[in-house]
Amino acid sequence: MKTVNVALLGFGVVGRGTYDVISENSKLIEKRYGVKVRVSRVLEINDAIIRASGLPKKLFTPDYNEILKDDSIQIVAEMMGGREPASSFMLAALKAGKNVVSSNKLALAENLPKLKAAAKKNNVKLYYEAAVCGAIPVITSIRDSLGINGFKEIRGILNGTSNFILTHMLQGDMSYADALALAQKLGYAEKDPTADVEGIDSANKLCLLTELCTGVYVAPSEIKRKGITKLGQADLAKAKAAGKKIKLIASARAAKDGVKLSVKPELISPDDILYNVDYVFNGVCLSCDFADDIFLYGRGAGAKPTGSAVAGDIINIAKEL
Amino acid sequence: MKTVNVALLGFGVVGRGTYDVISENSKLIEKRYGVKVRVSRVLEINDAIIRASGLPKKLFTPDYNEILKDDSIQIVAEMMGGREPASSFMLAALKAGKNVVSSNKLALAENLPKLKAAAKKNNVKLYYEAAVCGAIPVITSIRDSLGINGFKEIRGILNGTSNFILTHMLQGDMSYADALALAQKLGYAEKDPTADVEGIDSANKLCLLTELCTGVYVAPSEIKRKGITKLGQADLAKAKAAGKKIKLIASARAAKDGVKLSVKPELISPDDILYNVDYVFNGVCLSCDFADDIFLYGRGAGAKPTGSAVAGDIINIAKEL
Repeated sequence: MKTVNVALLGFGVVGRGTYDVISENSKLIEKRYGVKVRVSRVLEINDAIIRASGLPKKLFTPDYNEILKDDSIQIVAEMMGGREPASSFMLAALKAGKNVVSSNKLALAENLPKLKAAAKKNNVKLYYEAAVCGAIPVITSIRDSLGINGFKEIRGILNGTSNFILTHMLQGDMSYADALALAQKLGYAEKDPTADVEGIDSANKLCLLTELCTGVYVAPSEIKRKGITKLGQADLAKAKAAGKKIKLIASARAAKDGVKLSVKPELISPDDILYNVDYVFNGVCLSCDFADDIFLYGRGAGAKPTGSAVAGDIINIAKEL
Repeated sequence: MKTVNVALLGFGVVGRGTYDVISENSKLIEKRYGVKVRVSRVLEINDAIIRASGLPKKLFTPDYNEILKDDSIQIVAEMMGGREPASSFMLAALKAGKNVVSSNKLALAENLPKLKAAAKKNNVKLYYEAAVCGAIPVITSIRDSLGINGFKEIRGILNGTSNFILTHMLQGDMSYADALALAQKLGYAEKDPTADVEGIDSANKLCLLTELCTGVYVAPSEIKRKGITKLGQADLAKAKAAGKKIKLIASARAAKDGVKLSVKPELISPDDILYNVDYVFNGVCLSCDFADDIFLYGRGAGAKPTGSAVAGDIINIAKEL
């Protein structure tokens, strides 16, 4: 059985989740796909993380060049988050002829045309299932099945943190501040929640989905965007009284003069398929010219679900190598 | 740009739908996937269908050997339905070194081990997205992304015809006979509806899903199965009065001593994600050890949705050739 060597960049929540899927399910993966995937190197500079990992110290390196120059590594999985050095690291890997997998929606969305061009030029793959809606196989579904459709609309709840906050506010038991505090306590929101609650994270994901479905790249900074921070409990109570909910909706609509993108809070009726997407769950509805409406739902974040998506991309590339 | 030649076996509803996706979206496909897909031959013996197609007569042949012996054809898409000659035709194509795509759940479910072995031996692909839940990308999602998970449970409404009948019966406006007659009038049910209403169709699809998720093949004939023909309006009225619905549920559960499969009518509560899957729609919930619960929903049948799934498989193979 062939062995494919993989390097992980970053061993935080997602990196650890990815490592765990690959190691805990190794027998299953070998049986199903006929390939052995081996995490041969991990880029991590945080000593506390390395010590707490319980893994051999020699697996880790603080030097990215060691990974770049290692010809035995065919796939680099970037899970560092943030703009830089993640973007430069991905580009360098692609230019070195390595396949790249990433969960980093920010770095991907801002640099997509450059990264895709580098992947094409070097005849390697750039996969990013984990960057949009965690474990939900939306990127794979579009790339490997639905992509022969023309897309009329993409519409979804792409951010679990803001959805968690809105769900609690609608129930009437929490203010925005309390719901945010709970989300932070449970690890669903970061200390600085700006990217989640201002719709920046949703815009990054919408950018990736739109480019994949339509071929049109709209930079995240150009997407019309309104967050949830201006919503009060009274707004949600009013929606509830009318039998509706308020959700942060990301949408892209095919129009005569291009694609119209927006991220904003919207009133959602019970007959809308997104109505029952609550708490940290994500849901995406794809309106296609032949497949009609397809709805995908699941966990948008977390170590295990996101690790599943990264590992899925890795195996999908590895089995064809 | 490379051109990949495809033969379609059967030009009924699904064959026509597939042809239409490939021809109507050809520009989009070429741009997105960098490959030209050409339907170079169609196997069809029905002269009325050939005449009504509006396509050149020379595209059609009644002789399968012409397709088998044509080395320029790399993909054969089987959409004839029925056991034979579909099963033998698929096997012959695989043995001739051609990739096979199929929408035929009956032929696939009954012959899966043999067909998969032939595909493996001849190093070609056997894809069958269209055989399970029409346009819903459930097979692709498992094969290319979720397959690194252990599966705890598969649970779904896999048959649109029986779901259409149950939806109308629950609304209280129709008897079983009336709802079936309407389904037949709208083209959702066949003259002989046995396979749909007795759960045979669901069992075939459950067999395919279970094998893909767990590697365990359980022949459709060995799946415990109960249809919807014994249900009266009173049963549905009683469920409705309790705030529930009755749905024909196909499920496979991982157990200590193997996998437990069943197809049977079940009482469904409003908090169940399958509760809102009504009319001809299908829905599948996959419970995974890392990805957690993933739910996929969409149209389970029809020329365009099923054609989308077949065409998706064709392109997915063609882009890697």
